[in-house]
Amino acid sequence: MSQDTRKMFMDVIRKWTPHLDEPATDDCWAPEIEKAGLDKIKEIQSEKLEVAFRYIYEYSPFYSKKYKEAGLTPKDIKSIDDLHKIPVTDKEDLRRSIAACPPWGDFSCLDDHYWKQDGWTIWWTTGSTGAPVPCRYTSFDRVTQAWQAARHMYMSGFRRGDLAMFCAPFITHMFAWAHLKGLELMKIPAIPAGPPMPTEARIGHILNYRPTLLLGTPTYMIYLGETIREKGISAKDLSIREILIGGEPGGSLYATRKRLMNLWGCDVCDGFGTTEVGALGGHAHTCVYETKDQGRNSNLHFTEDSGIPEILNPKTFEPMPDGENGTIVWSSVSTVSQPILRFNLNDIMNIQSMDCPCGRSFRMAKNGVQGRADDMIHISGVNVFPANIEEAVRSINEFGNEYRLKLMDGKKGMINLVVEVEIMPEVPENDHERLLGVLQTRIFDKCQVNPKIESVAYGSLPRAEFKSKRILDLRAK
Amino acid sequence: MSQDTRKMFMDVIRKWTPHLDEPATDDCWAPEIEKAGLDKIKEIQSEKLEVAFRYIYEYSPFYSKKYKEAGLTPKDIKSIDDLHKIPVTDKEDLRRSIAACPPWGDFSCLDDHYWKQDGWTIWWTTGSTGAPVPCRYTSFDRVTQAWQAARHMYMSGFRRGDLAMFCAPFITHMFAWAHLKGLELMKIPAIPAGPPMPTEARIGHILNYRPTLLLGTPTYMIYLGETIREKGISAKDLSIREILIGGEPGGSLYATRKRLMNLWGCDVCDGFGTTEVGALGGHAHTCVYETKDQGRNSNLHFTEDSGIPEILNPKTFEPMPDGENGTIVWSSVSTVSQPILRFNLNDIMNIQSMDCPCGRSFRMAKNGVQGRADDMIHISGVNVFPANIEEAVRSINEFGNEYRLKLMDGKKGMINLVVEVEIMPEVPENDHERLLGVLQTRIFDKCQVNPKIESVAYGSLPRAEFKSKRILDLRAK
Repeated sequence: MSQDTRKMFMDVIRKWTPHLDEPATDDCWAPEIEKAGLDKIKEIQSEKLEVAFRYIYEYSPFYSKKYKEAGLTPKDIKSIDDLHKIPVTDKEDLRRSIAACPPWGDFSCLDDHYWKQDGWTIWWTTGSTGAPVPCRYTSFDRVTQAWQAARHMYMSGFRRGDLAMFCAPFITHMFAWAHLKGLELMKIPAIPAGPPMPTEARIGHILNYRPTLLLGTPTYMIYLGETIREKGISAKDLSIREILIGGEPGGSLYATRKRLMNLWGCDVCDGFGTTEVGALGGHAHTCVYETKDQGRNSNLHFTEDSGIPEILNPKTFEPMPDGENGTIVWSSVSTVSQPILRFNLNDIMNIQSMDCPCGRSFRMAKNGVQGRADDMIHISGVNVFPANIEEAVRSINEFGNEYRLKLMDGKKGMINLVVEVEIMPEVPENDHERLLGVLQTRIFDKCQVNPKIESVAYGSLPRAEFKSKRILDLRAK
Repeated sequence: MSQDTRKMFMDVIRKWTPHLDEPATDDCWAPEIEKAGLDKIKEIQSEKLEVAFRYIYEYSPFYSKKYKEAGLTPKDIKSIDDLHKIPVTDKEDLRRSIAACPPWGDFSCLDDHYWKQDGWTIWWTTGSTGAPVPCRYTSFDRVTQAWQAARHMYMSGFRRGDLAMFCAPFITHMFAWAHLKGLELMKIPAIPAGPPMPTEARIGHILNYRPTLLLGTPTYMIYLGETIREKGISAKDLSIREILIGGEPGGSLYATRKRLMNLWGCDVCDGFGTTEVGALGGHAHTCVYETKDQGRNSNLHFTEDSGIPEILNPKTFEPMPDGENGTIVWSSVSTVSQPILRFNLNDIMNIQSMDCPCGRSFRMAKNGVQGRADDMIHISGVNVFPANIEEAVRSINEFGNEYRLKLMDGKKGMINLVVEVEIMPEVPENDHERLLGVLQTRIFDKCQVNPKIESVAYGSLPRAEFKSKRILDLRAK
């Protein structure tokens, strides 16, 4: 009977994986899904959720126990209207599961036999918070993941005839791997040029081999463009047609996007995904319309068939009204390795129905990812997201791309926030004070806080090749 | 007509790719080929060579010109008996082709249209000598390459139920990529743990997740095992069942293998492959019999269906008698991207028919790769291979794994060779002189030269994470 549930789940996943080998039309890989309309998507989600819940209940010891404790049986979950009955879960649950059953934990639906017969790879969460969690995926998942990633990139305008170059490492983060699998399916060749390849060699490859697509983090893509500019070469005149950024919140911020567009003279698309809940090439991406400069932050389409997004109050887990920010909670219903229901991603987003010129009916997140709930800093009763400060810094041309936030002990248990910025070397010194004042105002407009702003020598702040850490907590522990 | 030749070539490649999805038997992936016998293999090679030559003649501008200048037409090459008519080619040809037609050269059989429609990846030669050469491969090649790599690893004893871990980088070297594709086909899951992941994290993964297979260079695998030993942990007690080494000559040397076996308490297999001629998961590998400790250097099976090996005199390109050392010249007849005929790999090997207990009929290279022809040092009229010195150093337990050769100007244009070695810290100082004397004798026995031997502080010689460079040329230019 158990075996039947796995087979049943795999059959449902396959049923909703049309056009496995190539796109259906010139502008949309799988229009039956991507342009299906909200009602049809809810039907698909309900069909997948019912069997996914039964499957997890039967196969995942950790969640089976958790669901039984919550008084649930497989019969209780028939459609997405029952979703709220399922307890929210988070990374701490995964860590507890691993601590109890090392080294993999007992949260996934793989037993040792199945893993040995159909195993493919292991990636680890990037550990923005706490110890990395290993996530195993199978050959079955590899196919679905490649299809999801290809659909996303196709939506963002990647096409056969392009040449992609990776500026992110192929190690234990899923970012590069998931997109590589998609590119293989799309028959777009890829140059693997992530670390430990040095930046100089990467620039040489761009100049010599003229890739049209780059993939990496926004931080590194800006660094790369600037390094090219320092050589007296305009990156705008090179071959790059589009950049896919991911791995950091803030990829949808207009200030960051504009820096990229100004440096590279190309379109920019943002991708948002999470290793724990399927690594399916991202849960939300920019479509080809949003990759263009719209003079604002970009909006992301959720992949509502691969999972079910909810936006909840980060504390009470009550649903937020459409269009209001909250933590995103994702139910993964397209992987046999580790489907997870109502997993709190701890990223701040919103969700709303919008008519997008691209024609897709998936709901969207206006302005993309606002920041990680974990990164949220409470200053004098105000919630501050580093991404908002990033936006303020990068909106002023005279500042460099880097910034750093220092948290210091203030009076009576308060936090003093210091924002370190780099003023561009060509800016005359007698203009510095004015610029710092402008920044102060912009930060206050965005965040309602008044941090101390300090300028440091240009180039002195740390530059990361992959994900950046820009918060320095100097408070006494 | 042109299109017909490509199709004809692809059909022949497919015809000789049996059991594309899984192995035929418990001990051999494709026995129709691997156990076919020498005569049948010659038939297969002849069938492939005839159409490969026509295909290259029609599709590769560079080789078309070269062959016409040699007075050849497609009708001249009917079987491997005609192979000697084809001029030998080498890396300099590829460089000339690239210089004339940057950035790809005109040596491959891909036109821009085909590359854009079926492109997959680009790897670069590791540049043991000179500037790296870009090698493009297509989706069609990806399938054949994965099959070849899987066959090799299956021959070496890798099985479903294993868990592999990569200690080599996924950047522009084909080593890790080719084996990854093979593992995907074999449904053996793989942990991508190459650089820039630090050694400490890699050790953590081995301790936590208990991989059974490791892949990397011999140098790094010894370094990793020693680093584990320094922590007071015996690598023998860990989970490793077999190590696949490649990327450096010397992987078949008993002294090196024995160090690995002593450190890890496991089997060791060696793989030999070259990016330029198909990247088909290696041209020669150790079979499961040879992965065991046989008390001698290991022998490698050539993959005689994927290409045609010849052992020639490095200067005259006349065939060497069976069993005698010469440079290996490889004719690649299983890739549509860049088949190359009679490509001088510049590696010193031999070839001979041997009855192997594994039952495969492919001819073998006794002792594997002896060294690179380029690395050969002429000392007082004697050809010295660094691999022989490596063997001598590592045969004495009191020496560390590292060594370095310094070439200095001697009298009358002669070369003075200095061998630097590290004596293990626990060896009493009054025994040093005797040990250096033993090494002197062993080097003379192997190489007929008497270098100056110097001991340097333990740990002072450079350690590489990937391929090692151990020759320091200090002669006035």
